[in-house]
Amino acid sequence: MGEGCRAGDEDRLARVAWGRLAEPCDLQAGALTQGLGHGDALRWLREGAGPPPVDAPWGQDVWARARARWRPRLAGLDPEREIAGIARVGGSVVVPGDETWPVALDDLEAAAPHCLWVRGDPALLVAGDARRDASGLTGAVAIVGARASTGYGEHVTGELAASLADSGLAVVSGGAFGIDAVAHRTALAVGGPTVAVMAGGLDRFYPAGNADLLARVAREGAVVAELGPGSSPSRSRFLTRNRLIAALAQVCVVVEAGWRSGTLSTAMHAARLLRPVAAVPGPVTSAASAGCHRLIREGVAVCVSDAAQVRELLPGGGETLAAEPDDAAVRRAGDVPAGVSTLDARVWEALPARGGASIDSLVRVAGAAPGAVRAALGSLELAGHVRREGDRYRRTAR
Amino acid sequence: MGEGCRAGDEDRLARVAWGRLAEPCDLQAGALTQGLGHGDALRWLREGAGPPPVDAPWGQDVWARARARWRPRLAGLDPEREIAGIARVGGSVVVPGDETWPVALDDLEAAAPHCLWVRGDPALLVAGDARRDASGLTGAVAIVGARASTGYGEHVTGELAASLADSGLAVVSGGAFGIDAVAHRTALAVGGPTVAVMAGGLDRFYPAGNADLLARVAREGAVVAELGPGSSPSRSRFLTRNRLIAALAQVCVVVEAGWRSGTLSTAMHAARLLRPVAAVPGPVTSAASAGCHRLIREGVAVCVSDAAQVRELLPGGGETLAAEPDDAAVRRAGDVPAGVSTLDARVWEALPARGGASIDSLVRVAGAAPGAVRAALGSLELAGHVRREGDRYRRTAR
Repeated sequence: MGEGCRAGDEDRLARVAWGRLAEPCDLQAGALTQGLGHGDALRWLREGAGPPPVDAPWGQDVWARARARWRPRLAGLDPEREIAGIARVGGSVVVPGDETWPVALDDLEAAAPHCLWVRGDPALLVAGDARRDASGLTGAVAIVGARASTGYGEHVTGELAASLADSGLAVVSGGAFGIDAVAHRTALAVGGPTVAVMAGGLDRFYPAGNADLLARVAREGAVVAELGPGSSPSRSRFLTRNRLIAALAQVCVVVEAGWRSGTLSTAMHAARLLRPVAAVPGPVTSAASAGCHRLIREGVAVCVSDAAQVRELLPGGGETLAAEPDDAAVRRAGDVPAGVSTLDARVWEALPARGGASIDSLVRVAGAAPGAVRAALGSLELAGHVRREGDRYRRTAR
Repeated sequence: MGEGCRAGDEDRLARVAWGRLAEPCDLQAGALTQGLGHGDALRWLREGAGPPPVDAPWGQDVWARARARWRPRLAGLDPEREIAGIARVGGSVVVPGDETWPVALDDLEAAAPHCLWVRGDPALLVAGDARRDASGLTGAVAIVGARASTGYGEHVTGELAASLADSGLAVVSGGAFGIDAVAHRTALAVGGPTVAVMAGGLDRFYPAGNADLLARVAREGAVVAELGPGSSPSRSRFLTRNRLIAALAQVCVVVEAGWRSGTLSTAMHAARLLRPVAAVPGPVTSAASAGCHRLIREGVAVCVSDAAQVRELLPGGGETLAAEPDDAAVRRAGDVPAGVSTLDARVWEALPARGGASIDSLVRVAGAAPGAVRAALGSLELAGHVRREGDRYRRTAR
């Protein structure tokens, strides 16, 4: 053990055990298992005395407290039975060394999960990795937001998720009501990949109102959790779950979020992981957009309006900069003709809407020298914007 | 002449003349008049030969072309008659050295206007200056936006303008349809100061549909222009006018703007003048907000949602940081009690919704050491969130 790279049986079982013993983001558990390997860490917990032989900044008291919180959970451990249990519902446990372990989670360092429980296609987990080449996946984008979403937010989420998933990007979200649900549902609707990250165990889909949707994500995409079956979701587990959403995706997009929304924690995790964060603005009169505006205002998130602007944030996305919105047909009669120089425009504007004008008059009105006015009239005439009649010039009808 | 600080009669008349001779932002006119003073610059134009004795990077040909565009306008000059004309309608011409000349315009350097024509209270022009102390004004904010505004944009403009004008800030805008008109109208409605900057002469209020509004601004606020009476607004004059809006205010707020809106030029002028620029986001489904999102996305503007966030951008505004939105009454039954520590929250969550739990059970469920669980229960009990019954603990009803 110790190197933690080969997914040998002992390592897998010990990782499942540590997923039970320690709460997510238990930094002592992270340091211990990364220092000793999960198997030796388990042996130290069962048999050892004093601080473990790992390089860590904590004294004996911290390790004593850590043991005291882990040991009460040793009694109920049965990793083999649990792995068999998830297999019976078509699921699996993924650990480092497996083909489908997302190396993107290494960015979490000591807060990386010990293992992942998966129902569905575990290959989707690597959508955010460099190793996705053979899978047909093009990357992974987290789309997260308010449970109390508005019709506006749901509409925008649908537009984003449809476009991104349709191009092979995995849509990662939290399976909650509101924005999350629309993101998953839309990705499924366009036949695209989607991953739901749960805060509790996979024996039960939470929230119950999304059970049908999550069952479909489990069949056609993947539902994933770091906590074993039977673990109930809690507020702290929702917050630690958010770091997995952030880590599994290459970009995090927040569509709607209240001023204190838990969604903001996903954005902050993504920012700490150096993943680009995007937020969709909305009406300032909508409380559901206040968190998005906060992220933009505080410089955490970049302001995005459509899927193309999200794609720009993907690795290499700067090569395909989003096009400007099409503004054909916005010009009105009386406007300066398109594509003319500044001076030409000034002379064109100096021409009356009806009737003609002499060069002397144009020189005064445009405030340009006679030679410049003559040159401008020449190029405007050549482009068909101006017509000469004797010694006077007039605009052509358009 | 030359020092251009005393508003002597000759300087005033010469400035009015130069306002006629040269288009706004004519850089040669700026260099010439700032180098020689307006009176000597006029004499050079009438009598001089060869390049003028000013420090400028242009050769003889550039000066020859400049003369050629200015001289045709010499014939019709009559500054005295013009000043008498504006006085007949209760207006005035303001020049540097006057008490009411806004020194903020010095930031425009060679593109500063030669003079300003004002109808209404010229004291409002200095709202954006350091010299406003005696006036009761507290500063000046430009609120600009789309002519093709939406109900949303008009609503937000009204909220912003009412709050800012009510606190004594002058609302500066362009007098156009849409956002501009709402900004002026709202400032007037709350009895606050407002300044409309016109692209053409003050003999005629443009657009005609806003004539009544602008007449009221002229009576209760100020309408101002750099071009003399009789000058018609043109596209290029609208764009150069925008620099005056930007310069006269300390902050520039864009409420709605299309992707290519002329309003963006006001924002860019403000940014070049090192004035903070703010933009109000809106639905990404609204073309009228696309320009605002562009400004935010490109880092030109900071995202603002209300007047308090605009005030933060005023000089010294950082001292009164905008409060967080009130989120009272968002907590629901079953939520972790407000104000408890992370560990306390974890233990509270480990308690079943109904019935009690032993410390051993809480240790396992919360994943915390027995001592820590006991300490958390103690503080939760003290705060009235938890009740002890024998050796079991339960949540108190709320």
